[in-house]
Parts: sequence; structure tokens; C-alpha cells
Amino acid sequence: MREYIVGVDVGGTNIKFGKFDLEGELLERWSTRTNANNNGESILSDIANSITEKMKFSEIKGIGFGVPGPVANNMVLHCVNLGWAEKDIAKEFSDIINEPDVIIKVANDANAAAAGEMYKGIAKGYDNVVLFTLGTGVGGGIIVDGKLVEGVQGVAGELGHIQVDYKHYFQCKCGKKGCLETVASATGIVNIAKVNLKKYKNQSPLRRFSNFSAKKVFDYAKEGDFIAEKSIDEAMRYLATAMGSIFFSINPEIIVIGGGVSYAGNYIIEKIEKYYYDKVRPFITHTNFALATLGNDAGIYGCCYLIR
Amino acid sequence: MREYIVGVDVGGTNIKFGKFDLEGELLERWSTRTNANNNGESILSDIANSITEKMKFSEIKGIGFGVPGPVANNMVLHCVNLGWAEKDIAKEFSDIINEPDVIIKVANDANAAAAGEMYKGIAKGYDNVVLFTLGTGVGGGIIVDGKLVEGVQGVAGELGHIQVDYKHYFQCKCGKKGCLETVASATGIVNIAKVNLKKYKNQSPLRRFSNFSAKKVFDYAKEGDFIAEKSIDEAMRYLATAMGSIFFSINPEIIVIGGGVSYAGNYIIEKIEKYYYDKVRPFITHTNFALATLGNDAGIYGCCYLIR
Repeated sequence: MREYIVGVDVGGTNIKFGKFDLEGELLERWSTRTNANNNGESILSDIANSITEKMKFSEIKGIGFGVPGPVANNMVLHCVNLGWAEKDIAKEFSDIINEPDVIIKVANDANAAAAGEMYKGIAKGYDNVVLFTLGTGVGGGIIVDGKLVEGVQGVAGELGHIQVDYKHYFQCKCGKKGCLETVASATGIVNIAKVNLKKYKNQSPLRRFSNFSAKKVFDYAKEGDFIAEKSIDEAMRYLATAMGSIFFSINPEIIVIGGGVSYAGNYIIEKIEKYYYDKVRPFITHTNFALATLGNDAGIYGCCYLIR
Repeated sequence: MREYIVGVDVGGTNIKFGKFDLEGELLERWSTRTNANNNGESILSDIANSITEKMKFSEIKGIGFGVPGPVANNMVLHCVNLGWAEKDIAKEFSDIINEPDVIIKVANDANAAAAGEMYKGIAKGYDNVVLFTLGTGVGGGIIVDGKLVEGVQGVAGELGHIQVDYKHYFQCKCGKKGCLETVASATGIVNIAKVNLKKYKNQSPLRRFSNFSAKKVFDYAKEGDFIAEKSIDEAMRYLATAMGSIFFSINPEIIVIGGGVSYAGNYIIEKIEKYYYDKVRPFITHTNFALATLGNDAGIYGCCYLIR
């Protein structure tokens, strides 16, 4: 009897596994190291072996994969971190396990995280969801009418590269300038704070450090430090600008904030709301905002959702 | 036998009708004046009467309505131009015609136009489509996986209000500044040209006029006039910025340009492409661009698509 679903969130360093029942209840989670040697050629068989240690493939209804690269129509287009070029995971993995009845689905990892939050996290009950993952970079995922939007070239939900900044023009890893990621990620918040420390003469506890984290900026901002708060406001205004563009495109029901920056808590949502409604009025007066609740498990839940 | 579909594109001045066969072949089109008196209370019965003159309701499979306001879940939320507040057209129209088997569907008119271009226009064969309608204002519609995205509050596809301009800050009718509509509509192009006529000393045939149309700006730009071309470039750069934001949200397969401004022809697409790829690289190297082909009929085709 096929009573399990397996979610596999493949990262550049670790592979996270979740064993779920058919209702999406997480029964067990574990992780292994990613071996990206030789263009990641052993990754799929490593995954198969790791699953075999926990259950039989004949017990599995399906396996959902989240991968760090663009995915369209169940086909991985490339994953630089894993050394993969275009890859038909469904076919290759089926061949490895030799169990044609196990359903294999693949999604981009950030998109899968959005699906996870909709399936079992804070966005449960919503069909139109936007997730922003604010960490070292900015990722995202978009769900319309309960369906992950992956885009024709698998690039839907790459929200970190919406252009919003025409002032600082920090260099983005993608080669462009002005990307949301350069001003609203943890790195971006620090960048902005450093600019403001030069621009303003005000005292600030941030001046004690030659380097500091986004968390420090949040902590001092919450205590009312002028430069820290100004920097958070600026970053959240950029984030609200991107949210406004997305709003006029798909008019979502809930916007979820995840990633390390979201640990700043409701303070971050208050700041976003302060700027967001200026962008979307008079068309609407309310969008739901929430902090992600599944943390690093969002991906495996989303992978489970692909199969459910 | 129910062998017809009727598309009804309800505008503030005219109501456009299309009689289609079940394959979406347009058999006949006609139009009537809109009577928006008394909060548009006679509009639906006027429509019913006009259809009766052409066919029997017992011959109709369904009627699709396009309306100039937000629509969510087949419910009109408001239509200022028609005097309508929240309105359940499906129920009211069914009551008027007393034919419960006639399917009634409703969509926003700009969204319907996008569906029309996908169904029978230039975007035929594509499932992921963005339509920009560049006229006096800027409207739009978005289709993901063959489905119109209407948004939770019916505001999806209001692409004219994506904020893109942080320089001119022209006043938008919506109350905000910086909206795409203020810089990329026919009005917006003229606004930019007027600014450039003051800013630059160059000779320009535009200086002969105290007032001029966007078409004039296009005509002189095509002839190589510096100020006219600079103005078109600027407007199309703003448009490309909005397209970039939409790209990273939903990664469409084709972007269609409709509305009066699109009569500038392929020149407009060359200008858009010049700026668009700067926004989306290195993620992709190609998106399809095309001029809308259905003109004012896009709406009725889209209304037909709602029923097909």
C-alpha cells in the first residue's frame, strides 16, 4: 500500500527529506550532505539510497523535489549550485528506483516553499499567495488559484530581481543594479545602513561596529535609533514597491514573509504596511500579511504538496 | 439547440455585442449606446432586449460580459462609469431573461481583451499571456496557464498603476504619482515630450504645436527627431520596467501590446525590446512580443472565451 509521500528539498549544501502521510502530516524529517562533485551526478542516487533506509519505494505514492534553479513542466532547466544542466529528474529518478508507479514532481525550491506555507503553514486556506523569502538574498514564490506559477522559462517568483532602487544602485549578483535583493535582503539592509551612517551625522550604536548584521539594524531600529530605523524604513519601502507591482499583476490574498529577516517579527510587517498601502490605494484597502511559520521545513511541505 | 455564444463588452459609452458559434467564430457584431442613467439600472434589460432582436435565448449556450470595473468570482464589485455598485450580473441577468440554462460569466473588460487575444488573436496558442492596452490610460490583463487572473479583489491586471516613474511624478487619476499610466499611455507620452521640449534646446517639429498627440510624437520619432525619439524611448523604458516586474512574478510567454498607441506598429516593439532585456537578463534571453490584432473586438472575443 502506497501510504507515504516524500518531500526532498535539494540544496547546494544539504538535502532535506520529509516523510509524510497522504494527508501531509510530517512523520519524520532527516537530512544528508549534498555531493555536488562531478556535476552532481551522484545526487539522485544518493537521494534514492537515503529514502531506502527509511521506507520501501512500494510504500510511496510520490516524491516531490525542490531544486535551486528554474523548473518548467517538471523539467529542471539548470541548477548551478548542484552542477546540473537541463535534467529530467522524473525520468532519471524513476529509472534509478525502477518503480514506475511512484509519481515524481519537481519544482523550484523557493516556489515549493510558497506552496508549503499554503499547504500547511500560515497561508493555509488561501489560494492566492505571494511568499517573499528575505535572507542573504531575496527569493519568492507565487500561487494563483491554488497553483504554483512556475513561468514559461521557470523564472516566475524570482522576486528578488524586480527593479526597485534608482538611488543606491548597489551591484546585484545577477549582474544588474537596483534589484530588490540589493536593498531588502539581510545584505541589502546592512548596505543601506552603511550608506545612512555616512549620510547622517546622528549618533547611533551602529557606529560602534565596523561590520554588523541586519539583525543588529533591526534591534536598534526597534529601540528607536534614528539611523537604524531610517534604514529599515527604506528597505521596507523598496519591498513595498515590489509588492505593489505584484499586487497590480495578480492581486493576491496574502503576502507571507519568510527567511532569516522575518525573525524580526511583526515589526517588519508594520513597516511594510506603512508603505504598501500607499502603493495600492485607492484600489484596495486590505491585503493580509503574515510571517512564515514553517521555517526551513516549508520546502519539504511544498514538495509534499506537489504530490498530494 | 444552443448553438450561439454571445459576448457583451459593456463600456461607459457603448455596449459592443458579438454573436459567436460554439467554436468562437464571430457571426455578427453590433453595438448600442450605454444608458448609465439612474445608476445604470436599465443596462442589463437593454442588453437583454438587444440580444432578443438577434436570436432567441433558447438558442444561446452562454453570455459573457466584460465590464469596466473589478470582477471577482463572477461578481462585479463596482463600475463607476456605469453607476453600478456591487452587482451579481449572473443572477440579475438570469432573472431578466428567465432562462436558467443560459450560462452567464463576467470578467473585467481589459482582462477579457487579454483572453480574446489568446483565444482568437495574436496570442493564440499561448497559455501565459500579458496584455498591455496603451490608450488614453494603460490597462492590462494577465493569463496564467490559460486562465484569466482576476485577483482576490478583482484588481489583477491593473498594470497602469504599477509605480515606475520616480522622476516626473505626473499626477495619476488614481490619486498617486509615478504610475505607468502617467508615462506610457498616449497622454503620458505627450507629457514626457512636453517636458523634453523644455529641457532640451534642440529644434523639433513638435515645437510648431502648442498641443499635439502621441501619434505626432511617434511620427516624428520615426523620422529621427531627437526630442520625439528621446520621449518615446523614455516612455518605453518605463513600460519595460513594469514588464520586468511582471516577468519576475509570472514569467509569461508572450507580451501583447494593444490600444491606440499600438498603431505605432513594430517600432514600439523595437523600443520595448531595447529596454526589456536589460531588466530580465541573465535570467532569460527571449520573450515574445506582438501587437494585438483584434482591436476593439478583443473584448467580445474574450467574453466568448469565458463561455466556450
